[in-house]
Amino acid sequence: MRIVSYRYQDRESFGFVTGSSVVPADSVAGVAARTVIELIEEGLPTRDRLSAASTRVPLDQIEYQLPVQATKILCAGVNFPTHRTETGRDAAKPPTPTIFTRYLDSFVPHLAPIFKPAISDQFDYECELAIVVGRHAWQVPVETAIDHVFGYSCLNDGSVRDWQAHTAQWTPGKNWYRSGSIGPWIVTADEFGVPGTQRIQTRVNRSVRQSALLEEMIHSVAELIAYCSTFTPLRPGDIIAGGTTGGVGKFMEPTGYLHDGDVVEVEIDGIGTLTNRVAS
Amino acid sequence: MRIVSYRYQDRESFGFVTGSSVVPADSVAGVAARTVIELIEEGLPTRDRLSAASTRVPLDQIEYQLPVQATKILCAGVNFPTHRTETGRDAAKPPTPTIFTRYLDSFVPHLAPIFKPAISDQFDYECELAIVVGRHAWQVPVETAIDHVFGYSCLNDGSVRDWQAHTAQWTPGKNWYRSGSIGPWIVTADEFGVPGTQRIQTRVNRSVRQSALLEEMIHSVAELIAYCSTFTPLRPGDIIAGGTTGGVGKFMEPTGYLHDGDVVEVEIDGIGTLTNRVAS
Repeated sequence: MRIVSYRYQDRESFGFVTGSSVVPADSVAGVAARTVIELIEEGLPTRDRLSAASTRVPLDQIEYQLPVQATKILCAGVNFPTHRTETGRDAAKPPTPTIFTRYLDSFVPHLAPIFKPAISDQFDYECELAIVVGRHAWQVPVETAIDHVFGYSCLNDGSVRDWQAHTAQWTPGKNWYRSGSIGPWIVTADEFGVPGTQRIQTRVNRSVRQSALLEEMIHSVAELIAYCSTFTPLRPGDIIAGGTTGGVGKFMEPTGYLHDGDVVEVEIDGIGTLTNRVAS
Repeated sequence: MRIVSYRYQDRESFGFVTGSSVVPADSVAGVAARTVIELIEEGLPTRDRLSAASTRVPLDQIEYQLPVQATKILCAGVNFPTHRTETGRDAAKPPTPTIFTRYLDSFVPHLAPIFKPAISDQFDYECELAIVVGRHAWQVPVETAIDHVFGYSCLNDGSVRDWQAHTAQWTPGKNWYRSGSIGPWIVTADEFGVPGTQRIQTRVNRSVRQSALLEEMIHSVAELIAYCSTFTPLRPGDIIAGGTTGGVGKFMEPTGYLHDGDVVEVEIDGIGTLTNRVAS
C-alpha cells in the first residue's frame, strides 16, 4: 500500500494511492486514525475495504504534505562505499554507523520548493532511503529489527556544505529550514520488499548525478534500526535516513551545487520519484 | 518569576514558585494557558494576580516534570575555555559555535534518576545553562537576540563518552534515553538578569567537579541564538544549552565517571539546584 499525506480543498488529510487517485482514509470503513502515525499504530485496512470506498481524489489535484509528522529523524552519514571514497574515507565498513539528526521543518514535501540559503553557494543534494518506523523499538537486536519498519519513502538530505563544515558537528548544514524533502508517499514494507536490488538515483535537471542499489548500503536497514534503538527509543512514524551514495555536487569537478530553478529528482525503484525545484 | 512543571495528586500541571509553595497556573486569574509553551506565548500574569490566587501546593510534595516540552533542543559544545583546553582544543574563540542536538526524551526532570547505560562505563556529567526561547526567532541579529529569551534553567548534558566517540558525530553519546536532566524550573529573564557573574557548578556526591562564571561562555547567549536562528527557526519553549566548563569526568586523573547511586547536582546562581541520582 501507498500512504500519501495531502491537502485538498483546503483540508489536510491522508489516504491510499490507487492508480492515479487517492482513497481518503476517512472514507474507508474501519479506519479510525486521524493521522498517519495513528494509522501506523492502528494497522492498515484490508484491500477489500479500500476497494469498497466510494470516494476518490485525483492524485494530480492534491497538494502533497510531508508523509508523516516524524518526531525523530535520525540520518546515517557516509553509508555507501562510493560516497565514503569521494569524501576521502576508507570504503570499508566501520564498526558503527555515523548518525546525525534533522528537524522535521528542514524538510518540504514532494513538489514544494526547497530553499537554497541566500548566504551560501554550496547547496547540495543527497538521495536517501527514508525508513519509517512502524513499531516501538528500544534496544532491538539486528535479527528482528526489520520487523519494526512500517514502510519506505524517498528523501533528499539537502545539505549546505559550508555550514556543515563550520565545525566537526554537521547540525547547522543539515538543518537549514526547508532545505531537504521527503516523499512523495510511504510504500509499506510488505509492498516494497527487502531493500536490496532497488535502484536509488538523483537527477538534477534530468541529468543523473547519483545512482546505486540499496544493497550497497554499508550498515543495513536492520543494523541502523538496531544501533539507533540502542540509545534512543524509536516510535511509530519516526524516520531513519539510510545515507547517500557517491556523486554529490560537492565532489564533482567542477562542483555541481544547486542553483535557483534547478529541479532535483530522487527516485527509488518501487517507491517513485520525489521532485523539488530549488528556490532562493 | 519561576515557572515549575509538576505532577501533584495524579495530575500534571504547571505553576509559579513563591517561597516554598507553588501557585498553580489554573488558579491565577487571567491565565488561560494550559501548557508552559502556551504561557510563554500568552505572557506572564501580573504579580498582583499571583498574590491574589488562593491555591497553594507545597513545593516538597510535587513530582517535578521537565520544565517545558521543547520541540528543539540545540546544544553548544566546547563553549567554555577550560573545557576547550581539557579536550585539547585551542581556548581561543572559534568563528562559529559547535552545535549538536538532543531529543527531549534524553532528559529527565529534577529529582528523577538519570540512567547510566549498562553497556558503558563512561557516563559523564556536564553542567550547562539552558536558555528557553520566548519569542519566535528566525535569522535574528546578535544585537536583538537576547530579546528572544523567555528564561533560564539548569541542564545536565549527561554524556556517554564511548558512544559519543563512535564517529565524529556526537549524536549517539548525547542522546541516551534519560541520560541528562533539565530543571528544577525556569527563571524568567527579567528575574535572572543578563548571564554574566552567576556561577555554574557541578557537584558529584557533594564534591565540586565543575565551576565557572557564565560570562566565561565563549559564544554568548545572544550569539548562540543568532547563529542557531540563522539556519533553523526557534519557537517558544525551544531550548539552547550553552555548553559546559572544564572538569568533566572524562579528563580527570583518574577519570571521574558516574556510577550507580552517585548524586549529581548542577547549580546556577539565581536559578537553583538540579539534583539527580544515577541509576542503572
